[in-house]
Amino acid sequence: MSRMTDDRIKIVRALREASKIALFSHGSPDGDGIGSMLAAGAALTKMHKEVSLYNSDGVPPNLAFLPDAHRVQRMDGSIPPADTFLLLDCAELARVNLQASDWPSETVVINIDHHISNNSFGDLNWVDAQAAATGELVYQLIRDLGLQLDEVMATNLYTAVVTDTGGFLYSNTTPQSHYLAAELMELIDVADINTQLFAQQPLAYIKLLQKALSSLEIMANHQLAVMTLRWQDFLDCGAEESLSEGIVNYARDIAGVEVGILVRETQNGEVKIGFRAKSWLNVNEVAAQLRGGGHKRAAGCALDVTLPEARAMAVSLLREALDVGRVY
Amino acid sequence: MSRMTDDRIKIVRALREASKIALFSHGSPDGDGIGSMLAAGAALTKMHKEVSLYNSDGVPPNLAFLPDAHRVQRMDGSIPPADTFLLLDCAELARVNLQASDWPSETVVINIDHHISNNSFGDLNWVDAQAAATGELVYQLIRDLGLQLDEVMATNLYTAVVTDTGGFLYSNTTPQSHYLAAELMELIDVADINTQLFAQQPLAYIKLLQKALSSLEIMANHQLAVMTLRWQDFLDCGAEESLSEGIVNYARDIAGVEVGILVRETQNGEVKIGFRAKSWLNVNEVAAQLRGGGHKRAAGCALDVTLPEARAMAVSLLREALDVGRVY
Repeated sequence: MSRMTDDRIKIVRALREASKIALFSHGSPDGDGIGSMLAAGAALTKMHKEVSLYNSDGVPPNLAFLPDAHRVQRMDGSIPPADTFLLLDCAELARVNLQASDWPSETVVINIDHHISNNSFGDLNWVDAQAAATGELVYQLIRDLGLQLDEVMATNLYTAVVTDTGGFLYSNTTPQSHYLAAELMELIDVADINTQLFAQQPLAYIKLLQKALSSLEIMANHQLAVMTLRWQDFLDCGAEESLSEGIVNYARDIAGVEVGILVRETQNGEVKIGFRAKSWLNVNEVAAQLRGGGHKRAAGCALDVTLPEARAMAVSLLREALDVGRVY
Repeated sequence: MSRMTDDRIKIVRALREASKIALFSHGSPDGDGIGSMLAAGAALTKMHKEVSLYNSDGVPPNLAFLPDAHRVQRMDGSIPPADTFLLLDCAELARVNLQASDWPSETVVINIDHHISNNSFGDLNWVDAQAAATGELVYQLIRDLGLQLDEVMATNLYTAVVTDTGGFLYSNTTPQSHYLAAELMELIDVADINTQLFAQQPLAYIKLLQKALSSLEIMANHQLAVMTLRWQDFLDCGAEESLSEGIVNYARDIAGVEVGILVRETQNGEVKIGFRAKSWLNVNEVAAQLRGGGHKRAAGCALDVTLPEARAMAVSLLREALDVGRVY
């Protein structure tokens, strides 16, 4: 998506003209969604706009330390009164529990996002899939609006970037991500932020990690690492489903391994499989054979079979894919 | 240490005038030591100097992917013929297995480092403890020498910075670290480097991590997290002692925990304790009571007692320290 076709200039004008602005970020919120929304909210408040902030799931405990986090309201289903909606980091309207028929037709809907899948649902759209985080776009927006960054904005923008880039290590990280981090570090001490974000793991997560690691098996000529978690494991650890996120990376990140998978039972009796490839295997194609999908190196699927059955299906497909890959 | 008192300009002159230059980095080498040496070596080679590179332990397997890594020679005890020695990332001569009586008195010894404990052992010294990595100083040196960065230098400098800053998350990270990363990313694709550095964990490490996590206990009002590893655990996992490094962070990084410790048996029958504090406890003082030391938030000690005895001693001292801390 080229920057030339974006409505960036129109968005600045629309925000200057707006008086009541409602900001939204996606449910199951993360650092980029909440951080982008809080930074933009702080900026628009400085412009004396009447600003309200919404998220269908509120602010998760690990982000409650963010300045202005208390301003975020949990959506109660009713549409907030505003002349302008600003949606941040939302690939689609469904992710904020909004639909176009819900609001007056004169409402200006602004969509600022970095997801490649964003379908430009807004009246004005600024979608830049090159940006590592929506926070990078909000930073540019704040500059376009002619505002000085303050500590509230800087803390929230840093959080947006450091979380969506996995501490500047994911492959989406760009020079711009680093330039921005450098500039923000001139304004704020990021040590506390990093501690809050990366050194406050729930004990239940650590217990769940231990369970997953103890299930680890290496196969297919050391190319495949497989971990499993039963629903009983989640119960034993006092862990919610969402805590298993990220554990699959431990399998992928073993020396010599190309693919790591985590096969886990869910509360509703399904089995979910997370696939992560290190450097060459297209796990999107493998997941697609199980009616799942995702990206080339990170994909998933959900199956209505038993844990051992799901594991066997995935291992069989991966053995084949790894074999074919080796031939060429 | 102020930049004004450094010999930075004299170092540039000395290197321009040198013809045979031997470069050294510290034993038990890490990404900053090896990366800094390889980057400086590539730069001086471009200046048509006769360059040789030495490390008492050679290049560890996880850094063997670095360009020019094959140029590093393992020190065999004899002093290499050179008119100039350039020591990088070495806090003291002992760390390179060199001593001043070993070489001709006319040899020019240049010391470039970022360790605060560096005792300026060189004829010319550039010690900047504000730098997150010695690689940041080598970058400046390369610019001072009037050279263009190439891919070899950039890959090695990126490795130096990303490893010594723990992926730009440790508190030593500065805006300069990010500016440098951004500039280097304009020259090289860092995704492969990050995979090599952070996604190639030895299987034995993962097994050892699982053992350590399964020993986890939380105590002292959830402020203290304790893990233990017997020497038998290392044997069962096929793990060398050095693989337990970093595991203690999993204990510290639990929500609500202020101190994490790992108490482990060593091959020689000692018990070593690693202490990591999150935000306020001075574990250097605690370790000192057990004849150990380190930094405020990261310290260690070695004891000639049994594992349960060592664990009990550490827990008792930490309970007290955490209690005292709570009072004030």
